[in-house]
Amino acid sequence: MASPSPGYGITVRVDAPATSGATSGLVAAVGGAGGALTALDIVESHPDQIVVDVTFDATDADHGTTVKDALAKVPGVTVRKVSDRTFLMHLGGKIEVTSKVPIKHRDDLSRAYTPGVARVCQAIAENPEDARRLTIKRNTVAVVTDGSAVLGLGNIGPAAALPVMEGKAMLFKQFAGVDAWPVCLDTQDTEEIISIVKAIAPVYGGINLEDIAAPRCFEIERRLREDLDIPVFHDDQHGTAIVVLAALTNALRVVDKTMEEISVVVSGVGAAGHAIIQLLQAEGVSTIIACDRKGAVHTGRDGMDKDRQWVADHTNPGGKTGSLCEVLEGADVFVGVSGPNLLDGDDIATMADDAIVFALANPDPEVDPVEAGKHAAVVATGRSDFPNQINNVLAFPGFFRGMLDAGARDITQKTMLAAAEAIADSVSDDQRNSSFIVPSVFDPDVATSVATAVREAAQ
Amino acid sequence: MASPSPGYGITVRVDAPATSGATSGLVAAVGGAGGALTALDIVESHPDQIVVDVTFDATDADHGTTVKDALAKVPGVTVRKVSDRTFLMHLGGKIEVTSKVPIKHRDDLSRAYTPGVARVCQAIAENPEDARRLTIKRNTVAVVTDGSAVLGLGNIGPAAALPVMEGKAMLFKQFAGVDAWPVCLDTQDTEEIISIVKAIAPVYGGINLEDIAAPRCFEIERRLREDLDIPVFHDDQHGTAIVVLAALTNALRVVDKTMEEISVVVSGVGAAGHAIIQLLQAEGVSTIIACDRKGAVHTGRDGMDKDRQWVADHTNPGGKTGSLCEVLEGADVFVGVSGPNLLDGDDIATMADDAIVFALANPDPEVDPVEAGKHAAVVATGRSDFPNQINNVLAFPGFFRGMLDAGARDITQKTMLAAAEAIADSVSDDQRNSSFIVPSVFDPDVATSVATAVREAAQ
Repeated sequence: MASPSPGYGITVRVDAPATSGATSGLVAAVGGAGGALTALDIVESHPDQIVVDVTFDATDADHGTTVKDALAKVPGVTVRKVSDRTFLMHLGGKIEVTSKVPIKHRDDLSRAYTPGVARVCQAIAENPEDARRLTIKRNTVAVVTDGSAVLGLGNIGPAAALPVMEGKAMLFKQFAGVDAWPVCLDTQDTEEIISIVKAIAPVYGGINLEDIAAPRCFEIERRLREDLDIPVFHDDQHGTAIVVLAALTNALRVVDKTMEEISVVVSGVGAAGHAIIQLLQAEGVSTIIACDRKGAVHTGRDGMDKDRQWVADHTNPGGKTGSLCEVLEGADVFVGVSGPNLLDGDDIATMADDAIVFALANPDPEVDPVEAGKHAAVVATGRSDFPNQINNVLAFPGFFRGMLDAGARDITQKTMLAAAEAIADSVSDDQRNSSFIVPSVFDPDVATSVATAVREAAQ
Repeated sequence: MASPSPGYGITVRVDAPATSGATSGLVAAVGGAGGALTALDIVESHPDQIVVDVTFDATDADHGTTVKDALAKVPGVTVRKVSDRTFLMHLGGKIEVTSKVPIKHRDDLSRAYTPGVARVCQAIAENPEDARRLTIKRNTVAVVTDGSAVLGLGNIGPAAALPVMEGKAMLFKQFAGVDAWPVCLDTQDTEEIISIVKAIAPVYGGINLEDIAAPRCFEIERRLREDLDIPVFHDDQHGTAIVVLAALTNALRVVDKTMEEISVVVSGVGAAGHAIIQLLQAEGVSTIIACDRKGAVHTGRDGMDKDRQWVADHTNPGGKTGSLCEVLEGADVFVGVSGPNLLDGDDIATMADDAIVFALANPDPEVDPVEAGKHAAVVATGRSDFPNQINNVLAFPGFFRGMLDAGARDITQKTMLAAAEAIADSVSDDQRNSSFIVPSVFDPDVATSVATAVREAAQ
């Protein structure tokens, strides 16, 4: 199902004979092995020999090796070096700390540092609110992780999580001008994480929790919200829920159904599932059945933890039991935030007419979107190589921009609903169809719209 | 003693009559009140009236008000607005987080973020050393404070300390290309600070402790050095000691004395005093007497804490007792890292011939440098408006540059001695004299020299 992606862009430097057919042999080898050729760059040319950089996209790392081996088998060709373009981009890190003002001479130093800075410090000591005016606090967000649930990779720890947090900081800046800084914690103790985030908070205008495993993430978020006077956002929960609600809003417009009348099956009751359930309910959805590996969550089940008990108490009003496939029958909407390949096309066929399927497990969705599309009216995934990508980058940059601009302390359902509405409304009536229920992540107006909506809702 | 400084640069906008003598009245008012005029900018001009921005440096905040009041008394003049140029520079913070690579289209996103980033994370999970290659860790330093001993301001807390830490981050980048990030902790508990710094360490290649009060700072530094695999530097200790040693090296060259033969009196046994004593001893100084508010520290004193006891055990070999003034008699070198106006010119006159006086208390030195200069051969202060400014910015940027480039884990005396030597040798034999024992903080070669020396010493 996977297609070649620039995430697996590879450059292979080869020696090849300087014959007229040499480069066509390279092109054929890449294509024959399933790679998507991006460029052939001749970097050296000699009477009998050329040196060529062959750049192509592969579907994954193993596939990259397959294509490289195919190149090595071309007659007369020797592979010199394999460069992974993704690794090259990450070399030395992807973000840096820069001065807004250069310190070129003594006057600059006297104002930015001693002795001038002392007066600025005293002003803040006398009036703590001035920190938002005279320091980076006003525009700065901590991206906090313990490395316990990173992407689909699981518990890889804080150091290995850092490339993701740096990437997140890049997105914050690129899409909303927010300064974000990675805080990768070498502890997975709930109480310690809470006390650390409280202690580092003076520098920040907001906290973005990221890739922290459930159920720990719920307690951390709840306690920090109680104790801190800056907004605390868990992107895996709130970011996902906002974009899912935006997408569902437009999907319902496409199939002409309303929030109030639909029945929704949510697969996965981790961080994302919880938040999606709460936000859909706030928007008026009354019939939700949540499923985990054991099937439908209902009040009759034994041995549930506190968070699962909350789900049982607040969903599944009819007390349905059974497997995911069983409860899916007749449902209007499927939202998957769980794992790969739980359903097939036949399962989707049992849903109500004009079914909506959001299969968001990454990189492999709960159901093959091509198969789902044969039976559902609208299909969305988390992948960039299918239409309707549900991507948190539509939400978090603009959301924090709005919170920071409002000087807001708390994240309310009102602000999240406003963000979802702004994203949904970024797709105009003319643009909206079953293949376009969310705007492009590169739509430059989305973050601004979200920021404006959130700022107004927060004020 | 103070003279007008750009650290107190002020712009006063006034309405003045459009007469030929109006601006000369403004100039006279600023000068008469002791301000140093920088510029007169006419921002509006009307037939009868002009609007003028009068920019001047004052000696401190109260003096700025005095000058403003003098302007208001000029006939026909009305003050519209007073702008403090230092505050203007700090508005919105002084540093930002920027991307090294723009994310302009899908290919960038696929490499910097998902899906490509997952492979980078996996590489680090498999080989943790790769974090130095593939993340910001290699070039990034945490500037950690609890806000308990900020500049001369004392315990003003973490939020009010942030402008200093931002300024420090600017200096790190400007002078040595190091990315530094402020960590201002809302706790002053030693154990909590230690555990927090350990937890946040995965992102950083070094820790710069800053403005943490003694004796807490000693325990924090010692424990972190034991537990972390990255260098831990306390600038108030090690930075100061390195620059003092560099300055003393050149001062001794000027007066033709050696480390081995001199006797040194150190006033102040806080963070800086401790570190200076240790580093001078490592360089061969055997006769040091330390003083605190109660006079000479010696083994016969009662009620000393652990750190003061260490000083008593390792200094004052003759067991001298008495006040600072008493033990100063006959000494070759005075190093003050204590408080203002403890000595006068007569005290300096009791020192040995060719005495060296480093009066480093800020902003008011232990002795008026002009008075000291009447009796000592070499005088240095921490101030920028006298010759021989002992400024840590000569040390910490290049020091960390060298440590990061070496991938060093530990700060050793060898690396600190190498840094001091590199700073001292940045002043050539031709340049060196009693008014030039340390290079200018804007000498672009110092940080590079220090970095090279430290890297070689660390490897």
